Amino acid sequence: MGTAEIYRNRIANLRSMMRDKGLDAVIITGSDPHNSEYPAARWKQVEWISGFTGEAGDVVITMDHAGLWTDTRYFIQATNQLEGTGVELHKTRIPGEIRIPQWLAQIAFNGVEGTVAIAVDGLAMDVSTVDSLKAAFREAGREEDPSHESGCGFQIVDLPDMLEDLWEDRPAVPSTPVITLGDELTGESRISKIQRIRDFMEDKGCSAVLLTALDEIAWVLNVRASDVEYNPVCISYLLITAGDVVWYVRKNRPAALHSETADSFAELDADGIAIRDYDDVFLELSQEDIPVFNSLFVDPSSLNYHLSRTLSGLGDSVRIISGDSPVPLWKSVKNEVEIAGMKEAHFVDGLAMEKFLYWLDCSMKAGNRITEWDAAQKIDSLRAGSAGCIGNSFQTISAYGAGAALPHYVTPEHGSAVLEPHGLYLCDSGGQYFFGTTDLTRTVPLGPCTALEKEDYTLVLKGHIGLAMSVFPAGTSGCQVDYAARCPLWQYHRDYGHGTGHGVGFFLNVHEGPQEIRHNFNQVPLLPGMITSDEPGLYREGMHGVRHESLILCVDAGTNDFGTWRCFENLTLCHIDTSAVITEMLTAEEKAWLDEYNEEVFRTLSPQLPDDVAAWLREKTLPL
Amino acid sequence: MGTAEIYRNRIANLRSMMRDKGLDAVIITGSDPHNSEYPAARWKQVEWISGFTGEAGDVVITMDHAGLWTDTRYFIQATNQLEGTGVELHKTRIPGEIRIPQWLAQIAFNGVEGTVAIAVDGLAMDVSTVDSLKAAFREAGREEDPSHESGCGFQIVDLPDMLEDLWEDRPAVPSTPVITLGDELTGESRISKIQRIRDFMEDKGCSAVLLTALDEIAWVLNVRASDVEYNPVCISYLLITAGDVVWYVRKNRPAALHSETADSFAELDADGIAIRDYDDVFLELSQEDIPVFNSLFVDPSSLNYHLSRTLSGLGDSVRIISGDSPVPLWKSVKNEVEIAGMKEAHFVDGLAMEKFLYWLDCSMKAGNRITEWDAAQKIDSLRAGSAGCIGNSFQTISAYGAGAALPHYVTPEHGSAVLEPHGLYLCDSGGQYFFGTTDLTRTVPLGPCTALEKEDYTLVLKGHIGLAMSVFPAGTSGCQVDYAARCPLWQYHRDYGHGTGHGVGFFLNVHEGPQEIRHNFNQVPLLPGMITSDEPGLYREGMHGVRHESLILCVDAGTNDFGTWRCFENLTLCHIDTSAVITEMLTAEEKAWLDEYNEEVFRTLSPQLPDDVAAWLREKTLPL
Repeated sequence: MGTAEIYRNRIANLRSMMRDKGLDAVIITGSDPHNSEYPAARWKQVEWISGFTGEAGDVVITMDHAGLWTDTRYFIQATNQLEGTGVELHKTRIPGEIRIPQWLAQIAFNGVEGTVAIAVDGLAMDVSTVDSLKAAFREAGREEDPSHESGCGFQIVDLPDMLEDLWEDRPAVPSTPVITLGDELTGESRISKIQRIRDFMEDKGCSAVLLTALDEIAWVLNVRASDVEYNPVCISYLLITAGDVVWYVRKNRPAALHSETADSFAELDADGIAIRDYDDVFLELSQEDIPVFNSLFVDPSSLNYHLSRTLSGLGDSVRIISGDSPVPLWKSVKNEVEIAGMKEAHFVDGLAMEKFLYWLDCSMKAGNRITEWDAAQKIDSLRAGSAGCIGNSFQTISAYGAGAALPHYVTPEHGSAVLEPHGLYLCDSGGQYFFGTTDLTRTVPLGPCTALEKEDYTLVLKGHIGLAMSVFPAGTSGCQVDYAARCPLWQYHRDYGHGTGHGVGFFLNVHEGPQEIRHNFNQVPLLPGMITSDEPGLYREGMHGVRHESLILCVDAGTNDFGTWRCFENLTLCHIDTSAVITEMLTAEEKAWLDEYNEEVFRTLSPQLPDDVAAWLREKTLPL
Repeated sequence: MGTAEIYRNRIANLRSMMRDKGLDAVIITGSDPHNSEYPAARWKQVEWISGFTGEAGDVVITMDHAGLWTDTRYFIQATNQLEGTGVELHKTRIPGEIRIPQWLAQIAFNGVEGTVAIAVDGLAMDVSTVDSLKAAFREAGREEDPSHESGCGFQIVDLPDMLEDLWEDRPAVPSTPVITLGDELTGESRISKIQRIRDFMEDKGCSAVLLTALDEIAWVLNVRASDVEYNPVCISYLLITAGDVVWYVRKNRPAALHSETADSFAELDADGIAIRDYDDVFLELSQEDIPVFNSLFVDPSSLNYHLSRTLSGLGDSVRIISGDSPVPLWKSVKNEVEIAGMKEAHFVDGLAMEKFLYWLDCSMKAGNRITEWDAAQKIDSLRAGSAGCIGNSFQTISAYGAGAALPHYVTPEHGSAVLEPHGLYLCDSGGQYFFGTTDLTRTVPLGPCTALEKEDYTLVLKGHIGLAMSVFPAGTSGCQVDYAARCPLWQYHRDYGHGTGHGVGFFLNVHEGPQEIRHNFNQVPLLPGMITSDEPGLYREGMHGVRHESLILCVDAGTNDFGTWRCFENLTLCHIDTSAVITEMLTAEEKAWLDEYNEEVFRTLSPQLPDDVAAWLREKTLPL
């Protein structure tokens, strides 16, 4: 059976189920029940039904149509992966786009008599998506009609785990070992964090909070697991009331390398946290007599539709208060212990990176044949061997030449490009350590570079330095300093299509909010203790890509007559290659910054590096 | 009778009226019926009742209290001006502030039995202010109770021109000459502009638009007057339906210098615009049988409460649609004819400015005694004598030393500071021309400057140049480039408390929206044709102030693989003094910009300047 046939069969089986259940359409998404950035394998339902592996895409199946909706980034990939499956590509983020709700309401079922039944997996869809679906149908003149009494209505059918019966070997809810982090690592006990939430409850005038975002739960409880690749989180829900804390989580888990999960649960229990099974949240929060609270705070951005419906079932006895969870902002402001850990992580990570860059340089000079994949394997294994490292914080991007022009390039295991002793190689990678998370990109000249490569390399570097050197008054948000990174590129009419900086968690997700540095009008100010990336880039299709990325810590810079000031402190320790820099394009301040940065990298790392690496690094970090 | 006694008597008379009418409190504001930035004398009601002349402040009178609410900028001024009047200062924009609605609802009438009657002049108050008043009373447990039936209610009593009977010599609604501008000045006929509004009506699905903002009406009709000081507008309302255009405006007006107002009205009449009396708007829009439309679009930001109530009286026969008027955005994007006119205005204005600066330099060298007031008189008269100038576009700020440290300094006629042959003098001024509007600030070293004065002068100049040189992609808004002007100051932990750039009208208000360059999250993009100021500054209390301001025109800068680009073109023609510049603090690019700018000023203006001024300007504009 050919690959495409697999998906055709799966769609046929789904249609058979639809006939049995009287469904007119099914929407399949790639989300997990917690609206995580990356879902575990169990929730890669779009990939299972269509073969499409892009990070963003939803599928709709009707009796006579199968379609995938995805955006510009994935058009080529989708076209290739959907070939022969019978699934048609619907393009989004283009002029004239028709999104799923409008397509269903105005095209697929336009003028169809009777009530149309649309099925969704309520676990894999958030409330606002369902709301926009309902709005589109109402706009098309259909009313909600769950009992099929209307001549022209619609019904949203919530079928949690809808594909369960069709997907024979569907992965279970992940159950990786759970570890706890002590105060010496986190700087704040879970008791203290729970108290913060109870203070928040008092402010909001509500009697319970349900946390549904995985990284928020991990932060509050000081627990980590590996339920999601690269993200050290544990799939669960957390309910906090004035008197109780209940963690809904799979209990049957293997032991961790360094501790027993049972010990972790016992430690939590000793702190007054009741452990209940993951699925119990639906049962317990649907019984009107059980809840000991009369109002419940939830954050709709990570609340799935199925759980939201369950809560509605509580009726008038519990008032649901929707709003932004306070945890993301608390979590984003790192305390002194977390900052010390992050610095330690960057020290260890820098050693691995410099060993990698040394190996790369030697290999190129020796004329060894190295592919992008080989290089990725090398840095991954060097990092994995570092003290305290439990793995990557995301999939390493190892890209040479034209490959690096794709900002989200995935290095293929087979057939990846061979590195040549000229032009630019780009490596974007990071690690998860028990004491922190790293993320850096270095663009490495492998030999002679063209004038344009050097110019782009230098302009991006100017942007990187511009943001790193920026000083700003308290209250300034990311979109108000984004200019610092873009100005040198804009002056040359060049730009990059991604953000300049994302928040980074403490031994948590490598992407976190609420702050960000980009053009979006995100009003969250940059606060001392926040850690953000500084990663301008430049990409020329078919030619080369440049990105310089370090993590920067927002710190206090004093107060004077003009206000209170903030600036950034660099966390990343890995030299920036000067061989592709056009020195005359740097200002005196930029040159001084670069020389000082490289000197600091050498001074800090060299004592812990093997002699040959240290000697090589000395050469690489000499002033311009 | 002492000055303070005047206000005490006025307040006593008002209280007597309140007793007669059964009012418990009166709110007096300084707004006009069109929510203009500057009101005509008739609407300076706060000044009349309290003696306070600040631009922002509201008064509340109850039977046992009189209070003025104003913000930090005016605390000192208010304290002085209110002395002896019995009016108490209530501070706003400070921690713990209590605004008028909360003060009335929670303090003044807290627990008072029966229904409280609060009077407002509905002509001088916008709808949202009344809404917040109502909300505060409701929050305090009172319901709206116009018939005084409740035991604990409130009533908002709309008394248009409430002070009319008490204010004997109250100025009438201004009636200055009306002139029309031909297409050779505006580049677009009123017929064309009215068609734009009718297209907008079709888009919005409404059958009429009522314009209430004075500069919007002036722009649409291509008319100008002098009803408001510095703002060449005409106090009026404009109603546009599919078939009719009705201008509600005082008809009895004197002739203009260059044309008869009667001719202006005749010209409008010929274009199908019916002229009706200003006050008729209330009568005509309150009669259900008269309106020939069933839905009316209004912009609440310039709609007064009294007119809003009048419209409500139309009942179900007319649907009121509230939204942002489309006119500000259209008006902000200048067409080619307007741009040519603005350039001509800046040329003429530059000649006046250079003559002024020459006079200033000669006077200082000659040891003449010149006050800030003398200098203001000089530039005002030079500008008034320029071809096409009809007056200032705002009150000239002429400030020396410590005076310049107050960004909104008002130069007093008597007792203003004497200019000394050292330190910094600041002059912020502009003119209204038949073909454009100007606004510029030059900070002039009058002799030796301190190191700090020079440093501040240079840093502000770097900011000014940074914004002038900025390049950005289409879609960028002002808050995303504000950093360009602030970065050099922020690097030194210095800042200014005002915006960097405001929109400027074409022979219209010197402040206009919708775009602006400042930290506010204003999402309106900078579009080609928009004219904005570039005016960073730095102010040291008791020492000195620096501001460098020119007007800049947003222009297209081409399209390439990375997008479509915008940059700025300088409009202002007046040299920037280099004697206080610390050359080493400028980058090569900044130095080149400054030399080129000054050279352009010399090249453009010198042929039209008297020989002695031209020779002096040659010296002042030599490269650094």
